[in-house]
Formats: sequence, structure tokens, C-alpha cells
Amino acid sequence: MKKASIISIGNEVLSGQTVDTNKSYLCRKLFSIGIPVVSSYTVGDQIDFIVRVMNLAGSDADVVLLTGGLGPTDDDLTRQAFARFLGTELQLNDRLLQKIQDFFTSRDLQMPQSNKIQAYIPEGAGPLANNLGTAPGIMAQMAGKLLAALPGVPSEMKRMFEESVFPELKRLSTGQAVVVRKLKCFGTGESNIAELLGPNMQRDRNPLINCTVEYGVITLHIIATADDKDKARRMAQQDETLLTQILGELVYGTGEQTLAQVVGQKLAQQRKTIAVAESCTGGTLAKLLTDVPGASRYFTRGWVTYDNTAKTTELGVPDDLIQAYGAVSPQVADAMAKGAREKASADIAIAITGIAGPTGGSIEKPVGLVYISLTSDNQCESRRFIFSHGRDFIRFRAAQTALNILRLKL
Amino acid sequence: MKKASIISIGNEVLSGQTVDTNKSYLCRKLFSIGIPVVSSYTVGDQIDFIVRVMNLAGSDADVVLLTGGLGPTDDDLTRQAFARFLGTELQLNDRLLQKIQDFFTSRDLQMPQSNKIQAYIPEGAGPLANNLGTAPGIMAQMAGKLLAALPGVPSEMKRMFEESVFPELKRLSTGQAVVVRKLKCFGTGESNIAELLGPNMQRDRNPLINCTVEYGVITLHIIATADDKDKARRMAQQDETLLTQILGELVYGTGEQTLAQVVGQKLAQQRKTIAVAESCTGGTLAKLLTDVPGASRYFTRGWVTYDNTAKTTELGVPDDLIQAYGAVSPQVADAMAKGAREKASADIAIAITGIAGPTGGSIEKPVGLVYISLTSDNQCESRRFIFSHGRDFIRFRAAQTALNILRLKL
Repeated sequence: MKKASIISIGNEVLSGQTVDTNKSYLCRKLFSIGIPVVSSYTVGDQIDFIVRVMNLAGSDADVVLLTGGLGPTDDDLTRQAFARFLGTELQLNDRLLQKIQDFFTSRDLQMPQSNKIQAYIPEGAGPLANNLGTAPGIMAQMAGKLLAALPGVPSEMKRMFEESVFPELKRLSTGQAVVVRKLKCFGTGESNIAELLGPNMQRDRNPLINCTVEYGVITLHIIATADDKDKARRMAQQDETLLTQILGELVYGTGEQTLAQVVGQKLAQQRKTIAVAESCTGGTLAKLLTDVPGASRYFTRGWVTYDNTAKTTELGVPDDLIQAYGAVSPQVADAMAKGAREKASADIAIAITGIAGPTGGSIEKPVGLVYISLTSDNQCESRRFIFSHGRDFIRFRAAQTALNILRLKL
Repeated sequence: MKKASIISIGNEVLSGQTVDTNKSYLCRKLFSIGIPVVSSYTVGDQIDFIVRVMNLAGSDADVVLLTGGLGPTDDDLTRQAFARFLGTELQLNDRLLQKIQDFFTSRDLQMPQSNKIQAYIPEGAGPLANNLGTAPGIMAQMAGKLLAALPGVPSEMKRMFEESVFPELKRLSTGQAVVVRKLKCFGTGESNIAELLGPNMQRDRNPLINCTVEYGVITLHIIATADDKDKARRMAQQDETLLTQILGELVYGTGEQTLAQVVGQKLAQQRKTIAVAESCTGGTLAKLLTDVPGASRYFTRGWVTYDNTAKTTELGVPDDLIQAYGAVSPQVADAMAKGAREKASADIAIAITGIAGPTGGSIEKPVGLVYISLTSDNQCESRRFIFSHGRDFIRFRAAQTALNILRLKL
């Protein structure tokens, strides 16, 4: 079985200014094709150190991936270290230089002189295209090992890895096939999921079920290992069915699906339109809905009615309703939703009002109190939630919960 | 100057299931007392590998910190590796055993047999108290080096480090003080910043200037090293002034400040209110503004007018204007801004209309084309931008650019 080793380069990582998320991303991707990462190294921007860990990584593994240090400034030394490791010199690549110049020209900019260094590649290595920035990557084969240097900027690194390195690695990968499927859940906690799944989560089980949580979204990783890909795929598929049966409507999707994507698909299929009225979430729900390409098929408009006057003038919420119950109340949530639905002539409207904090809470209405109201046809239903863990989490969780209510309604 | 090296241990880190946040935490803490981390290693739960990287780390540095692998299960092997590195055996420590038993007794639980292993410590090493869990740490001195093994659970690791290891390291630290200041910039690229700063970015300079980029925000890290804290602080302060002079209005803030925070402060100070009208950004700008606690002082309302009808009915954009110039035009951007300002009775309004993609572009109006219009008093000014790198980046960059225009206006 082929093995991999990963090297992260950059003073900003060692000084703790940057959390290294590239590493876990690459580990996961390699794991998914049966190339386990057996070691990883982090070093600063020093040629000697980089060359030394390249030697160590090369002795650990068949595949060595480097990230960082390909920028245009003097502290970017991965290029030079790669050349020294190969025992060659850097060479100017005219095609790369042209591409970098084009990058700036297409933006009506002059290429700064410092960017020229990015057109240099070690002799004996090839460039990897960067379709998001100016720093090309480097790939080389030496003594049966595959080495690739990728940018440190996560978006550029991922795109380059997926376009140019991953296909190469898939060809290398032999033998044990690993298939990873993901189930996405929303609406309960991690320990409750673990209880519902019981012995299915045992550590020596194959497929292995791992669980991660981010902003209330629980991802179950089903990791099936078998002699061939088809068998592993079948095992993962069976588990996906089993777990979905056990968890029911807690499962909202698979793979990398977001709640907004799933909701968007349902709205588009049912040819329904949605309008949103937000107070405490301040545009977060509209943003999540419009993160999805093609959202204009079902989303036409939204209001951020942050103060009370806005709720009255924009959505027709009666001022005496706000006076009687307060802006954070089921009555006002309902009135916001109804107003939004009517003004937008939408099939469905959803409204959120709450107290995101850190101030503004009271004993009856604490920070984290949120009312979410959904209206469609002649129905209008509001629900009360108490979220915690600070302003950002409260706002994001409230918007996600609104999407989940919408999902279950659809 | 003393140096440090960090070792992370655990299969879950190498399989990418866990992002290693311990490392950046320890790096930051060590950095703050003038003990730079010069290398770091990540290995799986295998004794041989752990011992090997302990040797490497020991040759790199004076302080070696390990995290992970101290749990009670069979895959936790840091204890055994530590003993082998010291050339000694594990010994049962009766006081530790008692403490672990007490931990369970106090929770009305029976101690599982597997936890007994946590009472073993290598001969020649001492235990570090764990006040949050059962896994004690290990600390030893060998050949002038300080070695400490900490749990992998972040909360336990941090508490143990702060209580037992950090005070020890402060004594070791030979007085070299390091002060880090951050300058946040927006409105240009990394290479242009490097060109403007010129020799100030040289690698051997003190303070050292490092540069990182995220979503268009460039962070300059000013790292000053001196014999005492006051001197380092003065040096960093001087550089902050110098760099701000050179970069002028490209610098929008310091530390962890966001554009929305800086804009919010200015609005609050000048007692001005803002309204926003968004098309392609779909709520992103409103969300960024309301991410800031207390945004209600200056932000009262926003519109997400995603389709053309919404622009007309909500903001009074004349339908024939949209027919004549298209929704993505400076004319419509201006009309959106004016409509929003008037309806919200705000001092300032900002409008964004553009094509976020991936579809909907044409030769004259490509994906990424965005008009941003700002209106205040009787002025109204729109600017044209072409952003790239996909839907998410275009939307986020457009909203950030709107904030930057607002900042410069204020």
C-alpha cells in the first residue's frame, strides 16, 4: 500500500498566527483513496529545514505533498528548497511567466517585479496550474516517489490539488480500497446520535463510523475498507441506508450538501417561492439561501428589518403589536412572516426575530432567545428556541434552524 | 535563545478527522515568551514513529512538547514511547492511581480497568496533574532538554499547559521578549504591498514583517524581538507607525479588527446611519454589518432585492431604467442606493448589483462584474469591479469592497 507524508511550510504556521487546515484536508482526501498519511512535518521559511524534512518525508512515504512558501515575497522559499532537494537549479519557464503576466493584464494591472520569481521551476520538475492565483505549483518524480508543492492559501491549494494532483494519486493507489460516504444531520446533539447508533459506532467495525460536528451540523463519515472498490462501495451504501433508517428525518443530506442546497432543491422541484424577513440574523438566512447557484428560481427578496420602525414600515407589523409583546415575540415573528409573504407574493415566508447578544437580554427574554415563524397558504406557525455559545453561533444556528424547519415543511 | 519543537500524536489527526488546533495554540504561547517553535511533527499511534520524532525534535530544540496518545485505550502509546526515549521503564505511581480512582468515585462511577494504565509514568519522569480529566501528563529533563507530554483533548491540554508547563518555560526563557502587532490592509494585492514595503520586508530585519492573505484582507505581522518586553513593544509600535505611513489608507485597522468593525466604529462616532440594498450579494453585506455587536446604533434596515420586480416595488427603481440598462448597471446601482436611503431615512446607503455566477454572464457583462453605489447627502457615486475566483469569493469580495468604499468615505 502506498503511503504519504505532508509538509507544511511557513513562519505564520509555526508562530501560531494561522491554523493549518490544509493538513487535515489533504489527510482526508488521501485517506479516501487508500493512501494513508503516516507522518507530517511543519517547518518555517528556511531552505535548510525544508530540504531536511523533504528527506525525512521521502524516507517515510511514497507521496510527499508540500503546502506553502510559493508566494512572491522573499520569505517564500519552497521553490528554492525543492530545487536543492532534487539537486538541480531553478529555471525560468516562459509559459508560466506569460500566464502570470496575463493574470495581471486581464485585471488591468501591471505585474509587480516580485511576481517574476513565481515563473521559476526547478529543473526536472513540472509546473501545476493555479487557476485562482499567480503561484504555480511544482510536481516531480524522484526515485519512485511523487513530490508536489502546492500553495498555502487554502482555496488555491484545494483547487490545484483536485485538478492536478488527486487524479495522479488515484492512479498510484492500489490494493485496499477505501470508500467514504458522508451523512449530514441536523436537529440534535452528537451524544444523542451516538446513542441512537449504539454498536454501529464501535471502533473495530467495518465500515467505521466517525462523527464530526460543525455549527450544529453533524457529519457521519462511513468509512468502508475492502479488497476492491465495488465491494467497499456496496458496504458503504448498505450502511448509508441503515443509518438513514435509524436516524430518520435527522438526516438531511449526503456528501457536502448544505441545508440551503437541500431546501433549494425542494423549492425548485415544487416550484415554490420563498421570502425572508430577518431581525437578529441580519441577512444571514438570505445569504445562506443565495449561496446556492440558481437561487433566483425560488428566492426573490428578503428584508433585514433590524429596528422596530423597519418592521412596521417595510413589513406592516402593527406598531401596537410590538408595543404589547415586544419585537422578540411569536406575535411579531408571525406578523413579519405574513407581511413578507404578502409583499413578495411568495408561496412561503420565514421570519426570524431574537436576541443575538451579547447585550439586550433580560430574565424573561435572555440572550439566545429566538422565534422563527413560517407561513404558507393560510397557515402560520412559530417556534421558540434558546441558542447559546455567543453572538456568531446564535445567529448562524438560528438561520440554519430556519432552513431546517423549511426543509421539514417541504 | 531557547527553541521549541512540537509533536502531535494520533491517528485521528493523520486521517484528517481532527483539525490540530493544539499546535497553533502552543506555538502562539511559546512565541509570546520568546521561545520560537522551529519545527513540528505529526505521527500516528506507533511507538517507533513517536520515538523517532522525539529524537528529531530533541535535536532541533531545547523544549519538546508532545500532545495526544495519553488516553486509556490500546492505541494510546505516548507513555510507552516516552519511556523508551528516556531509556527507562514505565512504573506504577500509587498516588496517580489513587487520583484516577477518586476521579471516578466522585462521579459515582467504577474505574474501568483500562484507566489503570494512566497511573504509569516513565522512571526518571514526573507526572503533570490533569484537573479536567483522568490522563496525567509527563514531564522530564534530559541532557539539558525539557520534555513534556500533554493530553490531546484541547481543553485538558490547555489547562495542564498553563498550570504546569508554562510557568516552567517562562523560567527557561532567557528574557528575550517577542511582541507581535498586526496591521490589516484591504484594497490591493500581496505583491503590491511587498513592493511598497520594499526592504522593510527583508528576512533578517528586526522587527520581522510577515504577510498573510485571506479573502482579500492582507494581514501584516510585525514581530519585534528584544531583551525586554518594553523595548520590543516600542520597536513594534515604531514599525506600526512606519508601515501605516507607507501604506496610507490601504491600512484599515489593527489586531483582529474586521472591516465591518472599523466601519461600524466610524458610523457610531459620526452618528450616521446606513441602509443597504443588495442584489448579487444576497444579504452578505447586511450580515457582515450586523456581525458586529451593537450594529443597531447605525444599521436599521436592508433589502435583498434579488429579482427585478423587487428592485422596483421595494426600492422604487424605475422599471424602464432596468429595461434600458439592465439590472447590472451603474444606473440601477445608483437608483437602488437612492431608493434605500430614502425609504430608510438613512444618512448613507450602499447598493450592490452584479453577476455572481456561475451562469448569467455575457461578453459585455461577465460573471464577476459588480457595481457598487454609495449615496449620501446629494452625492451618489458608483464604481465598477470585476471579481473572480467563483461565486462565494465574488459575493464576499463584493461585500467587503462595499465596506471598504464606505470606510474611505467616512
